[in-house]
Amino acid sequence: MKIAMIQMDVVHGKDKNISHALDLIEGACKEDIDMAVLPEMFCCPYSTSYFREYGEADGGEAQRALSGCAKKHGIYLIGGSLPEIDGDKVYNTSYVYDRNGKQIAKHRKAHLFDIDVEGGQRFYESDVLTAGENTTVFETEFGPMGLCICFDFRSQELARTMGNRGANIIFVPGAFNMTTGPAHWEVLFRSRAIDNQLFTIGVAPARDENSEYVSYANSIAVDPWGAVIKRLGIGEEIGIVEPDLSRIDSIRRQLPIIASRKPALYD
Amino acid sequence: MKIAMIQMDVVHGKDKNISHALDLIEGACKEDIDMAVLPEMFCCPYSTSYFREYGEADGGEAQRALSGCAKKHGIYLIGGSLPEIDGDKVYNTSYVYDRNGKQIAKHRKAHLFDIDVEGGQRFYESDVLTAGENTTVFETEFGPMGLCICFDFRSQELARTMGNRGANIIFVPGAFNMTTGPAHWEVLFRSRAIDNQLFTIGVAPARDENSEYVSYANSIAVDPWGAVIKRLGIGEEIGIVEPDLSRIDSIRRQLPIIASRKPALYD
Repeated sequence: MKIAMIQMDVVHGKDKNISHALDLIEGACKEDIDMAVLPEMFCCPYSTSYFREYGEADGGEAQRALSGCAKKHGIYLIGGSLPEIDGDKVYNTSYVYDRNGKQIAKHRKAHLFDIDVEGGQRFYESDVLTAGENTTVFETEFGPMGLCICFDFRSQELARTMGNRGANIIFVPGAFNMTTGPAHWEVLFRSRAIDNQLFTIGVAPARDENSEYVSYANSIAVDPWGAVIKRLGIGEEIGIVEPDLSRIDSIRRQLPIIASRKPALYD
Repeated sequence: MKIAMIQMDVVHGKDKNISHALDLIEGACKEDIDMAVLPEMFCCPYSTSYFREYGEADGGEAQRALSGCAKKHGIYLIGGSLPEIDGDKVYNTSYVYDRNGKQIAKHRKAHLFDIDVEGGQRFYESDVLTAGENTTVFETEFGPMGLCICFDFRSQELARTMGNRGANIIFVPGAFNMTTGPAHWEVLFRSRAIDNQLFTIGVAPARDENSEYVSYANSIAVDPWGAVIKRLGIGEEIGIVEPDLSRIDSIRRQLPIIASRKPALYD
């Protein structure tokens, strides 16, 4: 199983971002990949002031482009996320396509990102966005896969739930910033992998120091032992990883963390 | 609030270990500490073959020594752990005393350590030990404190439960080994601190390369932002930390991880 992590530049102009994403995926397909993963808000600058303007309803332009791309190359495509318009509501939504271009999952970010760190980052998604209400695990020929978006991954319970439902990999299109990124990005991907004994893969937009919200970048893949198997830099970059899924059962057998749980002790 | 982390050498001979622990605590008291924390199995070599031999019932010799020490110095004392004998059962138990030497908590390790890593560590506590059945949070003048022992801390749910019950600090007498220590020790203390937005403090025996089970040592204290505020080396060493408990509310306000949970989404 070969996965391309597409850490792309996101600029102003929805169409520009879509066609750039398709170009990068086409390039990655030379490596004979099975799956590509785009970053959070891959076709929209990460700012509450743009979400509605760049948004689209189910079946919109970006989704048609992603579906066509998946079909053309015969790959699974996890379409990062984009602003979804549903009536008067806007969601931060990830659409997933199979090798035939068929949509097989849709995850609306359920834990909105509302932070105000003293001397650091302030951002209130809930000023504009509505939270999703579902946990997402989808089926592939490589087994079930978990999917959540950025701040969703702050919830240890959500990660555990995806693990319980059989996820072999948890995919996280995400854009941590220059406050939370250095402090928490790697440790979260490592700890969720260790605690749930599965792979975690986070894909971020490349860093643009001039944008309103500066992405930490550093897209990352971690194995079920908690080892970082791929970590990208800050610029536009494609990372290819080949997770050995047999490691999941092997590690669960050697270090029975999940089997040793004692629910009677937990609130 | 001033806490001494007592990363001590553990040798053969229960009495030797007890008197050595008391000497180290007496030394630490020159720093005007409020609390001392001993490591897991501070008075018994960490091997299933010694637990029964070194064990004692409630009120035993080691406990009387710890109680007397707490009273003499007017400190809280988290007595690492020792093998507790209860009928024909043996537990890995931590006893806690207040400034008057009164026992205010008792935690029996609830998640036993049974691992068999290929080419690495094998250890089966459950060959000899019985698991405890309780979550432990105790009251102090510094607010509620959580307490668990080593492999207990593998359970994200147990840490969450202690946080829910108000713990400001989770104390973890623990002895990771040379397989799991480098891979998981720091990331676990950091991630439990980040996820629950509280302090975590782990105290390990010093490393002895010649013992049957080699402790990773590296006793550690982490703040609610996930920053390591103290990390000891591998030899015998006392670390003094002064956690600023006001950081807990401050960080929970700035980055509302706990408040953003959505239980309806979790199994």
